[in-house]
Formats: sequence, C-alpha cells, structure tokens
Amino acid sequence: MPDIMANTNNGNYPIFIQSGKLDRLGEIAASCVKGRKAFVVTDSNVAPLYLVRAVDALKKEGFSTPSCTVPAGESSKSRDILFMLFEQFNAAGVSRADVIVALGGGVIGDLTGFAAASYMRGCPFIQVPTTLLAQVDSSIGGKTGIDLPFGKNLVGAFYQPRAVLIDPSVLSTLTRSVTAEGMAEVIKYGCIRDRLLFESIEKGMSDLEWMIERCVRIKTTVVQNDEYDTGERMLLNFGHTIGHAIEKVSGYSGISHGEAVAIGMVYAAKTGESFGHTEKGTAERIRKLLKKWQLPVQTHIPVEEIFDAMMSDKKRLTGKFFFVFLSRIGEASAIPTEKDSLFERMKGVWDDE
Amino acid sequence: MPDIMANTNNGNYPIFIQSGKLDRLGEIAASCVKGRKAFVVTDSNVAPLYLVRAVDALKKEGFSTPSCTVPAGESSKSRDILFMLFEQFNAAGVSRADVIVALGGGVIGDLTGFAAASYMRGCPFIQVPTTLLAQVDSSIGGKTGIDLPFGKNLVGAFYQPRAVLIDPSVLSTLTRSVTAEGMAEVIKYGCIRDRLLFESIEKGMSDLEWMIERCVRIKTTVVQNDEYDTGERMLLNFGHTIGHAIEKVSGYSGISHGEAVAIGMVYAAKTGESFGHTEKGTAERIRKLLKKWQLPVQTHIPVEEIFDAMMSDKKRLTGKFFFVFLSRIGEASAIPTEKDSLFERMKGVWDDE
Repeated sequence: MPDIMANTNNGNYPIFIQSGKLDRLGEIAASCVKGRKAFVVTDSNVAPLYLVRAVDALKKEGFSTPSCTVPAGESSKSRDILFMLFEQFNAAGVSRADVIVALGGGVIGDLTGFAAASYMRGCPFIQVPTTLLAQVDSSIGGKTGIDLPFGKNLVGAFYQPRAVLIDPSVLSTLTRSVTAEGMAEVIKYGCIRDRLLFESIEKGMSDLEWMIERCVRIKTTVVQNDEYDTGERMLLNFGHTIGHAIEKVSGYSGISHGEAVAIGMVYAAKTGESFGHTEKGTAERIRKLLKKWQLPVQTHIPVEEIFDAMMSDKKRLTGKFFFVFLSRIGEASAIPTEKDSLFERMKGVWDDE
Repeated sequence: MPDIMANTNNGNYPIFIQSGKLDRLGEIAASCVKGRKAFVVTDSNVAPLYLVRAVDALKKEGFSTPSCTVPAGESSKSRDILFMLFEQFNAAGVSRADVIVALGGGVIGDLTGFAAASYMRGCPFIQVPTTLLAQVDSSIGGKTGIDLPFGKNLVGAFYQPRAVLIDPSVLSTLTRSVTAEGMAEVIKYGCIRDRLLFESIEKGMSDLEWMIERCVRIKTTVVQNDEYDTGERMLLNFGHTIGHAIEKVSGYSGISHGEAVAIGMVYAAKTGESFGHTEKGTAERIRKLLKKWQLPVQTHIPVEEIFDAMMSDKKRLTGKFFFVFLSRIGEASAIPTEKDSLFERMKGVWDDE
C-alpha cells in the first residue's frame, strides 16, 4: 500500500515513504510496467552508495538493469548529457514497455524525468530521490527539465512518474549542509501550510520520516489543484523570488538553492510585515529556526541588485505581479503587488539590517 | 465557429478548415492566448509563399511577430535546429502567455510542436499545415518530435496545439507529387474507415475541402479514443508497416513517405487477401486508385529485406504482433499475427508479382 496517492490529469501514481524501501524497488517497478528492463540513471556521488542496492532490488524481480552514471552537479542538466542518455536508451533497447529509474537528487530527477518524457514520446519512469530536498520537493509534481546556457530549467516537460520511492534512511549519508538545504524547504512547507510542522521543528523534532510525509502531502495537494503551475502552485515559491535573485546575482556559485531560499524567506517575511500582510514577529521566528539548522539568514547584496535580478525574471510582466506573503506561520497567499511599492518596502527592510 | 472540436486529456482545441482562412490567423491566435507575441516557425519553401500573409494576419490583431525560417526538409528535425529555436525563443522573449505558430508541412509541425512543448515546459502553439499530408495527418493528434541519428521520431512529446488552421487554398502551390503524397493518406482513411470517401475519389471527386474534413474527422475520433497511441490509433498505420520498411531499406531517399505508404497499402491488402482476412479484389481497387494519382504501387525490393526491416522495428516484441488488415474498403482491424506465418504469406504475394 502506498502512503500517498498523487492524482494528476494523466493518471494517479503512488508515493512510498519508508526507511529501507529502496530494497523493494524491484517490486514497485514490476507493479508499474510490463517490460523486463529497468534503465537506472544516477550520478557519481550516489552510484558508489546506492546503485548496487537499487540494481540488486530490480534484478530480484527479473529486470535487466542497464545503467548510466553522470557527473554529479547541476552541469549535468545539459543538452549534451540529455542526448547522451537518449543514445544509451537506444543502445540498451529501451522501449515504452520498460522503465527508467532516476536514482539521485534533484538534478538526476529533473534530467532523467525529461529524458523519460521525451524518449519515444514518453517512457515510464520512477523517481528514487536520495536527498532531502528531492524527497520533499523536486521528485513530486512532475516538473522535469534541463538548463540552457541562458536560463535554468528553460526546457522541459510536465511529466508524472509512475511511482516515487522515498527511503529516508538513504539521507544518513548526506553531509550536514546538504541536509540543511532540504530543511530550508521543509521549513517553507511549515511556513506556508503547516503550523504544526513548523512548531514541531522549533521544538527539536527530528523524525525525518514524519516530516517528509507532511511535506509530500502538502506538495501533492497543491500540485493536484494546479498541475501546470498557473495558480496555487505559486505558493510553493514563498522565499523563492528573492532566493532566486540571490542565486542569480551570485552567479549560482558559493550559495546553494536551499541557502538562498532560507535568506529569501526571512526577507520575504520582513517585507510582508512591513506591508502589514504578515503578523509581526513571524520573520524573527523563521530566522531563529533557520539559524538552528545553520542556514544563512542574511545577505550583503544591495537591495537594488536583488530587485533588478527579481525583475529580470519578471520582465515580461507589466504593472502588478503576484508576490507570495505569509499572513502568519502556516498560512500564505499570493498578493498582487506593485513593483514600485515592493521596492520601497524591500529597501526599508534592507536599510534596517 | 470551428469546423471540428478535438477533445484531449488536456483540454479541447478547435480545427478550422476553410479556404482563405490563413488571413484569419490573427483572430484565431488572439482567441487562444493573452500574450501579444506570436513566434512563427516556417521553412525555406513556405516562407516566400505564405510567411508575409501569416505575419500580416497576426499583426492586424496586434501581435508582434518574430519568426525563424529553417531549411526545408527532414534534416531540420534535428537536435541542433531544435536548440537553435530555443535560443531564438529566448532572444525574442517568448513566454508561456505567447503563442508559437508552426507554418509548414509535417517537418515544421513536428519540430515546432516539440519546441513549443519543451520551451518553459510548454508554450501554446498553433498548427498551420501547408501540405495535404500535414493537413490530413501530422497536424492532428499531438505527436511532435525530432529525429536522432539512429532513429526517426525517437524523441518528442504528445502535445496538443491550441488550434489547427487548415487552409486548403494554400495547397494550390504544391507540386503534383507532393499533393499525391497527401492523397496516399487520404486514400488510407478511405480504406480503414470511410467507404464513401474512397468511392468518391474513385469517381473522380476533387473537392479537397470536403476530403480534408472527412479525414480530419476520422483522425480526431481515433486520436480521442487513444491519445497516447496504445490501441486504436494503430489502425492509422494501415500500409505503414511495410511502407516504413520500404523507406528504411531505401535509406529514406528516392522515395517519399506517401509513396512508400501507397506501395505498403497494396501489399498489405494483398497479404490480407492471402490470409483470408480481406475481401478479394480489395488490393486491386486500391492499386487502381493509387495509380490514378500517379502513386507507385510496386516495389522491387526482395521480400526478405522488407521483412527484416519490418522486424527490426519490432525487435523488442516477441511472438505475435498486431498487423493492420482491411476486412473490406472502409473497415480495418489490428489482428494478432505470427511472424513466421506473416512472412510466408508475404513471400507468396511477392512471388506472384
């Protein structure tokens, strides 16, 4: 029995969340497809740790298991690696009856998902996320894609997996900073939708399996209501507008996505307080909790640079745009906001630092 | 009012069939999207004939109209041209609120459709097919894609257009042989689903608009029942299994897709007669009608080579596979067929020639 069923426009899929579940990958794959081939895509960090276990689990159920290990890191979300995968799928004789397995973090999930979406116009694939960030965020919701030299995630597909296998025990091999990166997103879910989750983390709760399940439930519900990202899904972007701008100004180096989102959440909450959208003291609670996880909560980049980077993302929009604010911990909404007044409020926040 | 509404898993879209409709492209685009940008992709054959008319029609409705003209021919369904389009979309500032227009034959529709499906994980696009083949076949049904060095249409997406604009008057600039290529598919629709259409063509009917509408109705109905090509859609492949094999053995040169399908239909019908699946005399009627359109009806490639090429397509299948046979003109079904007995029957047909 899956823990959660995700419902999409193009069918439903199960999400399993259980420590040790990686060893059941074969059974899950067998329940999804008729073919007898499971092509595993992973990266050079994950392969030495979990590839053999994944392959063994698949073999136990009679799958043949061609695989491909790409270099770890964002640079693998590229055109060349994508077409190299197509070549390997073809060489291995992958058909639409077979299954492609994404074993890794967000990069592997995005890359493999898009490759699976496009090869033969769509082969079944299974997400096996191995970072906290991928388990609570990128493996759910069907967003796949690669980067282009002039933009991240600019090319891709909305393509749902046949199943998601989340094994929290694989997180034990992550470094502290990679775990913290995922915690930034976990805390985000608390902020926008789940006060109990937020307060449990404040109290020092450390049951990852429980936390992951709460996050996944929120994400699947939001995605279900807005599969193609035209409305409610925007709430998941709390802290991300400022966070993306920080990443961009930093040239995507020296700061991770989760770290940038952590800083973005603090400043977004402060800006919300300044507007009067957000309960006073909210930003401070978020700041404290992020610090506990050794996440950064401050930036020295001038507000003008951040704002410019934010607007270059939104350059195609005119007048007001939606900005995600909290009303309090556990409640968020997207509020139509004027560019000029947003800049004024942000400037006030930056000046206060 | 659209002539036909196509219903898909991801919404419905209108298909307009009317001579002179190209000049209404702007109104149709305006009714599909909010954005004010329409990026037109076309090829070096079509651009001198219809690009200015398409662009004028779009400008009349206030669209800005960046465009890109790719070399005519199958070789534009390539990775490099695809990524060149992404670059141009980005340079032109195309967003998910804008629309991408595919103005051309099947190559342009397939390439542009996949580019639109993937850019920003999906931008709206409109099909404006300018060959008979594209008007009755490839522009309908949402199959998009490019070729890889080791296989045609190996990478792509099922992605539905927001609208299809079919203007039969643009066909007047086609050469006889390109028109005949489309007629092979028109005759195919008659064979599998529409005896009246077949007999009207036998009687010399030449009302293209009427013929196109009959074909489009059949295709939309079949696709509606089987959007992702796992069942009924197979019937559209009558004549195509042998046809593809002929194209492959010929190295995709010296013979067009439509010509290969024409030959394929005659041999498939003869094979069906030999099995007893197909009413006697059917192959002869098809042969006569195709000849009237100066389409080829015979191949000198040995049956062994054809069969090998057919099986290399199906190498991933074991035992029986579905082969599309006519029972009579206007009725087709996919019949599970053993490889060995199929070869024997085909050999008999080839020996009779």
